[in-house]
Amino acid sequence: MSDTMSRITLARRPEGAPVPEDFKLAKDPLPTPAEGEVLVEVTHLSLDPYMRGRMDDAKSYAPPVDLGATMTGQGVGRVLQSNADGFEAGDTVTGMTGWASHACLPGSDLRKLDPSLPPSTALGVLGMPGLTGWVGLHSFGKPKAGETLVVAAATGPVGSMVGQLAKQRGLRTIAIAGGAEKCRLATETFGFDAAIDHRAHDDATSLRAAIAEAAPDGVDIYWENVGGKVLEAVMPLMNVHGRIPVCGMIGWYGGSNIAETNQLPAMWRNILVKRLEVSGFIIFDHWDQYPAFLKDVAPKVAAQEIVHLEDVAEGLENAPDAFIAMLEGGNTGKQIVKL
Amino acid sequence: MSDTMSRITLARRPEGAPVPEDFKLAKDPLPTPAEGEVLVEVTHLSLDPYMRGRMDDAKSYAPPVDLGATMTGQGVGRVLQSNADGFEAGDTVTGMTGWASHACLPGSDLRKLDPSLPPSTALGVLGMPGLTGWVGLHSFGKPKAGETLVVAAATGPVGSMVGQLAKQRGLRTIAIAGGAEKCRLATETFGFDAAIDHRAHDDATSLRAAIAEAAPDGVDIYWENVGGKVLEAVMPLMNVHGRIPVCGMIGWYGGSNIAETNQLPAMWRNILVKRLEVSGFIIFDHWDQYPAFLKDVAPKVAAQEIVHLEDVAEGLENAPDAFIAMLEGGNTGKQIVKL
Repeated sequence: MSDTMSRITLARRPEGAPVPEDFKLAKDPLPTPAEGEVLVEVTHLSLDPYMRGRMDDAKSYAPPVDLGATMTGQGVGRVLQSNADGFEAGDTVTGMTGWASHACLPGSDLRKLDPSLPPSTALGVLGMPGLTGWVGLHSFGKPKAGETLVVAAATGPVGSMVGQLAKQRGLRTIAIAGGAEKCRLATETFGFDAAIDHRAHDDATSLRAAIAEAAPDGVDIYWENVGGKVLEAVMPLMNVHGRIPVCGMIGWYGGSNIAETNQLPAMWRNILVKRLEVSGFIIFDHWDQYPAFLKDVAPKVAAQEIVHLEDVAEGLENAPDAFIAMLEGGNTGKQIVKL
Repeated sequence: MSDTMSRITLARRPEGAPVPEDFKLAKDPLPTPAEGEVLVEVTHLSLDPYMRGRMDDAKSYAPPVDLGATMTGQGVGRVLQSNADGFEAGDTVTGMTGWASHACLPGSDLRKLDPSLPPSTALGVLGMPGLTGWVGLHSFGKPKAGETLVVAAATGPVGSMVGQLAKQRGLRTIAIAGGAEKCRLATETFGFDAAIDHRAHDDATSLRAAIAEAAPDGVDIYWENVGGKVLEAVMPLMNVHGRIPVCGMIGWYGGSNIAETNQLPAMWRNILVKRLEVSGFIIFDHWDQYPAFLKDVAPKVAAQEIVHLEDVAEGLENAPDAFIAMLEGGNTGKQIVKL
C-alpha cells in the first residue's frame, strides 16, 4: 500500500474554456482516518459538466472550489481502512471523493454499492446523471404518451436516460447530438425516433428547420442542458403548455456561443404566449428521490432495458484532459476516469 | 334610439408602437338581434395591453384582429333588445362587445352583472385584470408569508390586485412604477411596502441597486408583466426557488427597449442556478376560476379591502388615443372608455 496520495487541484480560475494549466497534480502523504471516518482508494472518478461551474468564483448553487483545493467530484472506490460502523476493508463504496487517488470521508457520507452491478454505474446511469434525467423528466417534464420530446446532448448520460424513459412512456423522442456517430448511437443504441446533428447546421434557423421536420406536431418537452444555438432553435417550435426542464447550459458556460443579436425578447415572448413552464432544477435538491429512482431503474439497467455508455480515461493525471475534452463534446457516454 | 352604430376598426398593422392612423372609426346600420341574440348598447369599454398583441399578424394565443375588423375587447352595456332567454331590455351585461357602440351577441356569451357594484368594476378589479392577478399570484406565484414580492406596473389593474392580495397574505411588497405620482399611489393607495420609480433609473444596473435596497432578503416572486429593463434588473436578485409568473411583456411589445447586449445567457443562468420557476400564463385559460375569484374578491371590493383605480376616457372615438397613451404608461388605473 502506497504511503502517498495524488489529487488534482484547481490551479487558477479558467477564462472561458478550461485549459490544462488551470489544473495541477499534487502529492500528499496518505491520510489516516479519524474516528468515524473511512479511508477509500478511488477506483473510478466521475467527470461531469457541473464541475465547470464550480471552477468559477461566481455565486451559484454550490460554493466554488477554492484555489489550490482538490477538484470536487464523485468517486467509487475500495475501503482500505475503516473507523466507521458499517464499513470494512474491501467494501466497494461511493461518495464525494474529489479528483483524488484516495479520500478520507465520514462513513455517513459514503454509500455501499450493490455488488451485482458494475461499480462505475454508480457514477452514471445509476448515479447523479441518471437521477437527474429521471427526476427532471418526471417532476418537471411531466411527459404524456403521444407527446414529442427533444433532448439536447442526447447521447450523454443524462440525455440518454431521458430519451429512453420517455420512449418507454410512449413519447416521440428526438435527439440533438454532435456528429454523425453520436446521431447513429442516439437512434440505434438509445432508441430515439430521430436524431439531428447540430454540427451540420451553421445557425439556429437551419437547425430549427431540421427539428421542425422531425417534430411535425411541435415540441411538448424540450430537455434543455446546453443553452446556445439549440435553445434558440427549439423555442419557437414549442407547443402551448410545453415544459422546459433546465438542468444545464453547457453551450454558455464560459460565455461562449453568445449570439450577436439579443434573443431575449423573442424567448420571453415564447414563454408567455405558449404558456411554457420553464423550471430550473439542480439535482442536489432531489437526493430524497434517490431510493425511488434506484428501485425503478436499477432492475431496468440489469435487464438491459435501459442501456448506457461509458467513456473511460485511464489515470488520475489524465482527468483534466478528459474533462476539457468532455466540455468540448469529445466524449460519447458517461465520462469516467479509471484510476 | 339611434339607427346607426359606431365601431373602431384595425386600419393597418402597427410598426412598433401603435399610432392613431392604425385605427379607423366606422359607422354601420344598427344590427337586429337574431334568435338567441341580444343587442347591447355599450356603456363602458375596457382597454388592455393584450390588445396590442392582437394587432399583429403573429402566431399568438389568440387569432389576430383582421384588417378592417372591429378591435376586440370587453364591454359593459345595457340590453336594448333581447331574443335570448334570461335577458331583457334594461339589464346590465358584460361580454366581448369589441370597440363599438353596440354589439349583437349570443346570450350565452353575455353575463348579467350584480347591480350592487359599479358596472365598470366588471372590466377591471372584478374582471379580467383582477382575475389575472388573483389566479397568477395563487397558482403560479405561490406566495408564502414573509416572502418578498416585486410587482412591475404596480399601479395598474393587475399589479395593484397582486400587491394588495400579497400584502394581505403577509408578504413584503415592492412596487415598480413610472413616476413619482404612481409611486405615491403604490404605497398610499395600494399599500405597497416600498415603491421604486423606474424612470429615475437610466439602466438596469441602477434600477437593480434600488430594488436590492428595498428587498434586503432578495426577491421570491417577481410579477412579470413588462419585460425589458425591469426584468433585467430583477433577475439577478431572485432567490433560490423563486417564481416568475409571466403574464405580459409590455416593455417589449413592438420590439422597443431591446438592450444592446445579449442578456439571454445571463437570464438563463439565473433560471438554472436559482432553480426558478418561470411560468407563462394567459388568463383566457383560467376562466373556470372566475366564480371562485368573484366569491373571494367581490366582497373585499365592496368592503374597500381591495381598492382600485380607473382612468376614464370619454367617447368611443377617443379609444385609440387612450389605448396608445396606456401602452406608453400614461394611465394610472384601469383604463376604461365611457361611451
